Amino acid sequence: MEPHAPSTAASLDLDADSTPEAARLAFRGGLVRPTCGIAKGYAQANLMILPKELAFDFLLFAQRNPKPCPLLEVMEAGVTEPATCPGADIRTDVPLYRVWDHGELVAETPDITDYWRDDLVTFVIGCSFTFEFPLMEAGVPVRHITAGRNVPMYDTSIPCASAGRFHSTMVVSMRGIPSRQVSDAVRISGYYPSVHGAPVCVGDPAAIGIDDLDHPDYGDAPILEEGDIPVFWACGVTPQAAVMASRPAFAITHAPGHMLITSKRDLDYMV
Amino acid sequence: MEPHAPSTAASLDLDADSTPEAARLAFRGGLVRPTCGIAKGYAQANLMILPKELAFDFLLFAQRNPKPCPLLEVMEAGVTEPATCPGADIRTDVPLYRVWDHGELVAETPDITDYWRDDLVTFVIGCSFTFEFPLMEAGVPVRHITAGRNVPMYDTSIPCASAGRFHSTMVVSMRGIPSRQVSDAVRISGYYPSVHGAPVCVGDPAAIGIDDLDHPDYGDAPILEEGDIPVFWACGVTPQAAVMASRPAFAITHAPGHMLITSKRDLDYMV
Repeated sequence: MEPHAPSTAASLDLDADSTPEAARLAFRGGLVRPTCGIAKGYAQANLMILPKELAFDFLLFAQRNPKPCPLLEVMEAGVTEPATCPGADIRTDVPLYRVWDHGELVAETPDITDYWRDDLVTFVIGCSFTFEFPLMEAGVPVRHITAGRNVPMYDTSIPCASAGRFHSTMVVSMRGIPSRQVSDAVRISGYYPSVHGAPVCVGDPAAIGIDDLDHPDYGDAPILEEGDIPVFWACGVTPQAAVMASRPAFAITHAPGHMLITSKRDLDYMV
Repeated sequence: MEPHAPSTAASLDLDADSTPEAARLAFRGGLVRPTCGIAKGYAQANLMILPKELAFDFLLFAQRNPKPCPLLEVMEAGVTEPATCPGADIRTDVPLYRVWDHGELVAETPDITDYWRDDLVTFVIGCSFTFEFPLMEAGVPVRHITAGRNVPMYDTSIPCASAGRFHSTMVVSMRGIPSRQVSDAVRISGYYPSVHGAPVCVGDPAAIGIDDLDHPDYGDAPILEEGDIPVFWACGVTPQAAVMASRPAFAITHAPGHMLITSKRDLDYMV
């Protein structure tokens, strides 16, 4: 592989106006931060990287669970440049990866070049960050972006359909939405089914087995302002829950909230 | 006008399978009951009947407030047969009417023939009962129908846009929806913008100035089962609130929950 591009002051200063290319170069250069709020208008994605012998089972898992695992792209074994990100290198251009051995997290690293193998199949999975800018453009507040935090994510009791060696419950992300704007949040996110679509639960965390809203299982603590209703969307961290539950011999994922920023427009995924 | 058709045992036994014609004949015959749950698949409507000299102001009020006042039909002065209900008589075919004098309720009657004047203009306004069957077909419970009750309705603090002599706050109807099905309720009702469309508030009654959910201003007490989230839709009783607030010299409306059952299919109003 080529050497990492050097970090520059400009590349470290990512925001909504950054291009996907600039963001990926910054991450290739070693920047580690959650990607929420970066590169407005471009779709972000979750990653699942598996040996080819597990790829059919996971592809079937995704096909049976399109709400948490909407596939934007499947890269064939050994391929490192995603079609959704021309010029990118899937081994370096995500800010933070997680390496899994039999369901145990064994490393968290900004560069998986040393782990790469020619039999690895990469699944690029839609992410709810994609509809956050459309929400904000409609006047719906997205509080974790305003606060510069990662979105809170939770394990739930919602079962996923099993497939081969993969089984799991669903992971969800949560956003606090004012009562008068819940309809807009449902409607607008519903236009984006390939990035998780409409919420799976509105209002009652206990309905999906969440006991303690203040302590998410992934990401940062939630921000709920007076009158906010907790709204839950299916989350692309579900494949990581599937890795922990199903214990495949080897897997690499992104770290929660640290996504692949694709070169596809949000609008490309709007129905 | 023709004499009222006689009530029959069959016509009094109205349910989801009744035709709009049979229901209207039963009401013409003197049956008084709320219309929720009757004539599945047919649109129901709110009524506002005003002297022609007030009609422009109200038409403008409806145009400026399409969420609570979606117009399905405006019948010109003196016309008694709605285009949406061939063969019907607007003076007799609604189960219960209210007569208003300078904003005061002066009569509640199943027949307005004695009040009819040739200068009266009738506004036929969409009703949320229209999307209740599509909700139930999608598996979303509609608890007041199951319980055989009228829907609870509330005055709110949401301002309507004023027009001429008409001003008001919005009236809403409320249905308790399980958290996992709120998205479906928003999505499905959103397909029917001309019968109030998607909810105006989800979860927090205080956000729209409702202090006491147990005591609605119109209709029956609410049914909220464990885990239900209160969901609020704009309501066609809003014109009655406008009558009370604006005190026009004369007006006739339906009684809340006692609607005109039209011969139009729900699907005719689906976008």
